[in-house]
Amino acid sequence: MSRQIIDLLITARWTIPVIPENTVLEDCALAVNQGKIIGVVPQSEAEKRYQAKEQVVLDNHILIPGLINAHGHAAMSLFKGYADDYPLQTWLEEHIWPAEGKWVSPEFVQDGSELAIAEMIRSGTTCFADMYFFPEETAKAALNTGMRCQLYFPILDFPSAWAQDANDYINKGLALHDNYRSNESITIGFGPHAPYTVSDEPLKRIAVLAEELQAPIQIHLHETTKEVNDAVAESGLRPIDRLNQLGLLSPLTQCVHMTEANNSDIELLSTTGAHVIHCPESNLKLASGFCPVKKLQDAGVNVALGTDGAASNNDLDLLGEMRTASLLAKGVSQDASTLNAHQTLALATINGAKALGQEDKIGSLEIGKAADITAISIDSLEATPLFNPASYLAYSQCSHQVSHVWTNGKILLKDRQLQTIDEQALREKAQTWAKRIKASGT
Amino acid sequence: MSRQIIDLLITARWTIPVIPENTVLEDCALAVNQGKIIGVVPQSEAEKRYQAKEQVVLDNHILIPGLINAHGHAAMSLFKGYADDYPLQTWLEEHIWPAEGKWVSPEFVQDGSELAIAEMIRSGTTCFADMYFFPEETAKAALNTGMRCQLYFPILDFPSAWAQDANDYINKGLALHDNYRSNESITIGFGPHAPYTVSDEPLKRIAVLAEELQAPIQIHLHETTKEVNDAVAESGLRPIDRLNQLGLLSPLTQCVHMTEANNSDIELLSTTGAHVIHCPESNLKLASGFCPVKKLQDAGVNVALGTDGAASNNDLDLLGEMRTASLLAKGVSQDASTLNAHQTLALATINGAKALGQEDKIGSLEIGKAADITAISIDSLEATPLFNPASYLAYSQCSHQVSHVWTNGKILLKDRQLQTIDEQALREKAQTWAKRIKASGT
Repeated sequence: MSRQIIDLLITARWTIPVIPENTVLEDCALAVNQGKIIGVVPQSEAEKRYQAKEQVVLDNHILIPGLINAHGHAAMSLFKGYADDYPLQTWLEEHIWPAEGKWVSPEFVQDGSELAIAEMIRSGTTCFADMYFFPEETAKAALNTGMRCQLYFPILDFPSAWAQDANDYINKGLALHDNYRSNESITIGFGPHAPYTVSDEPLKRIAVLAEELQAPIQIHLHETTKEVNDAVAESGLRPIDRLNQLGLLSPLTQCVHMTEANNSDIELLSTTGAHVIHCPESNLKLASGFCPVKKLQDAGVNVALGTDGAASNNDLDLLGEMRTASLLAKGVSQDASTLNAHQTLALATINGAKALGQEDKIGSLEIGKAADITAISIDSLEATPLFNPASYLAYSQCSHQVSHVWTNGKILLKDRQLQTIDEQALREKAQTWAKRIKASGT
Repeated sequence: MSRQIIDLLITARWTIPVIPENTVLEDCALAVNQGKIIGVVPQSEAEKRYQAKEQVVLDNHILIPGLINAHGHAAMSLFKGYADDYPLQTWLEEHIWPAEGKWVSPEFVQDGSELAIAEMIRSGTTCFADMYFFPEETAKAALNTGMRCQLYFPILDFPSAWAQDANDYINKGLALHDNYRSNESITIGFGPHAPYTVSDEPLKRIAVLAEELQAPIQIHLHETTKEVNDAVAESGLRPIDRLNQLGLLSPLTQCVHMTEANNSDIELLSTTGAHVIHCPESNLKLASGFCPVKKLQDAGVNVALGTDGAASNNDLDLLGEMRTASLLAKGVSQDASTLNAHQTLALATINGAKALGQEDKIGSLEIGKAADITAISIDSLEATPLFNPASYLAYSQCSHQVSHVWTNGKILLKDRQLQTIDEQALREKAQTWAKRIKASGT
């Protein structure tokens, strides 16, 4: 009997494939060929079926689908810890926007994106969604490091270092979309910043273009009660109703935050098929409010998970974000069974894939999907005893135990060492930026 | 000029002494002699003043006072991840109490306590408060490992493996108190489990004895709204009012949880000088409610921080708990300036010391206090850039970066290696317990 020659065989003590749901496989093997998962089989069978060019034995580990960070601003990692303990508007208007005005440039975005990608890989993320200036630099950083990403080029009414007005933002973004049209790992979408920073005309144009290109849209929406109240006072419309009137809500749309969501908002999300990206740590840190995750899920709305930028978190640790999401959802819903361990892992994997329109490609360890895989070591005092691998991932701090990460079958992290990034050089670049920012006193 | 001979000199890049408040010292040295801090001076001056028998150079680290975990059930670390996603009453009555009935013994408490202590040391804790059966075994584990602790012997109306009835619990506890009367590191107090598990007579006896011995009392109080509503329906009294009538509220009293705290409850805590021990992760995980930390602090109530047992957390990481406490308090108070980074560190240090009645001895890096010291490495990609050391501790996952821990000037953790515990042997013991518990199917 001849064995199939494959690129890579990973055997692991525990595997949680996410699909099928609520499943923990023991002593399982993943067969990978040409960047795709081609088999999920018992280890004993794997030896009979495959002859692997490379075999990785992870006998004290948990394998999961690579995590999907569904909202962030990667380059802002250079502002991590720069301004803490301020509410959203003060934080933006008095600290972050002035600092961005002074510092944001192609080089800043290149180095900041690389820093964020490095931290994300080291904590098990294989795909990130990002909205920031100079997205072409973030795209390059993702290409260079092997990370998968979906980038939303920013659109604002006012000028920035990247563009002059809404049409300029959109035109630059369309050019970028065109550049990456056939790229397998990088997709480009529309990133209107928020209802209060983009006016009706560009929003209408975005709705038409996104539908035409079948490109995703990501927008900060209902981040605070104040945002909603201000809009109602000014126009009589809740922001989500205005977006709906402008034709902007569809399964292509990802609504980030939604801490303020009444029953009619939830109904609207449900009927239009728009997704919610939940960023619990950022919402808490900026005292923005509590997203009603259980109510949204009960209404059939897809909820994915994001860290937001490191300036309002202050880390990009999606395993930690899972824990916060689960604990907070239990507290807010007053129900300890809300977001159980498996549902919490789904938030950061398959739900993210759905939000990004890529559930046919990523988000679970299934045959035919991309080999985007994360391994977490359980060889530690803190993981002893281990009654339930899913519970360990959801409820214990374990991101520093992430040992291996692959995207498209290519290794990005091996025994905690970055494989596509020069960590020392990156740390030096980040320190140089920090020194310049500190010295300038802004 | 002759230099003073001392036991230990620790030099560090950053030092946050907690007192004085809001202070970050750069290139500072701590002089330690006979277990006490005798100097906090600039490094340049330290070399002139001291001749140290041992010098530890931590030039890429932050020094803080050893953390104080003000509420837990150490031995329950053997039940970590054993029963998740259940509300408090189901979790207790259908899972934890039956498992305890079957497994809790002196050996279980000895091994479970050692496991908890090891995890706490590795995450920067130097003192823990504990309430569990067979407290004499937890005391021995603390003595053997060099940890400081305050143990509250349990008191319940119903029998357990440790005692038969309330008087039996109290008598056994008093004997333990007597044994440790002159111990510098271990103090013994009263641990009436909760208002709903201890009747009036024993509570009155505890109030008299605690006052007489000047011994601390720790009690689970107002953990859920249901607890309060049930008590009011039955007796017409809120539990805290009943405790007050029984003479149980004073500066010796530590009220754990207090998620349900109306204005009159807060007023009562404030006037009696009782302390609140906040356990945010356990409260979230069991969907128990939100402790109003800001309102309590604004009313002058001392709030300390605890992880609770690992079965409802599921880790004993007090740095992580700080982060959850700060983020949650901002969200609950709708004010992003609530529990800023320095105030958050105070929660887990000096406020804990006050709650335990030991603020003259621990909780800050001040001359005359015990040399209970924790060092956290900042030599990592995740700590780059570092605009603000306090913010890094409060808002980034960093417990796995704890490098050194001392209590009374004695080293318990060195370069992340436990110095007073055989880690491998401990892991094997814990795994053996887990196998037995799993095999029994309970």
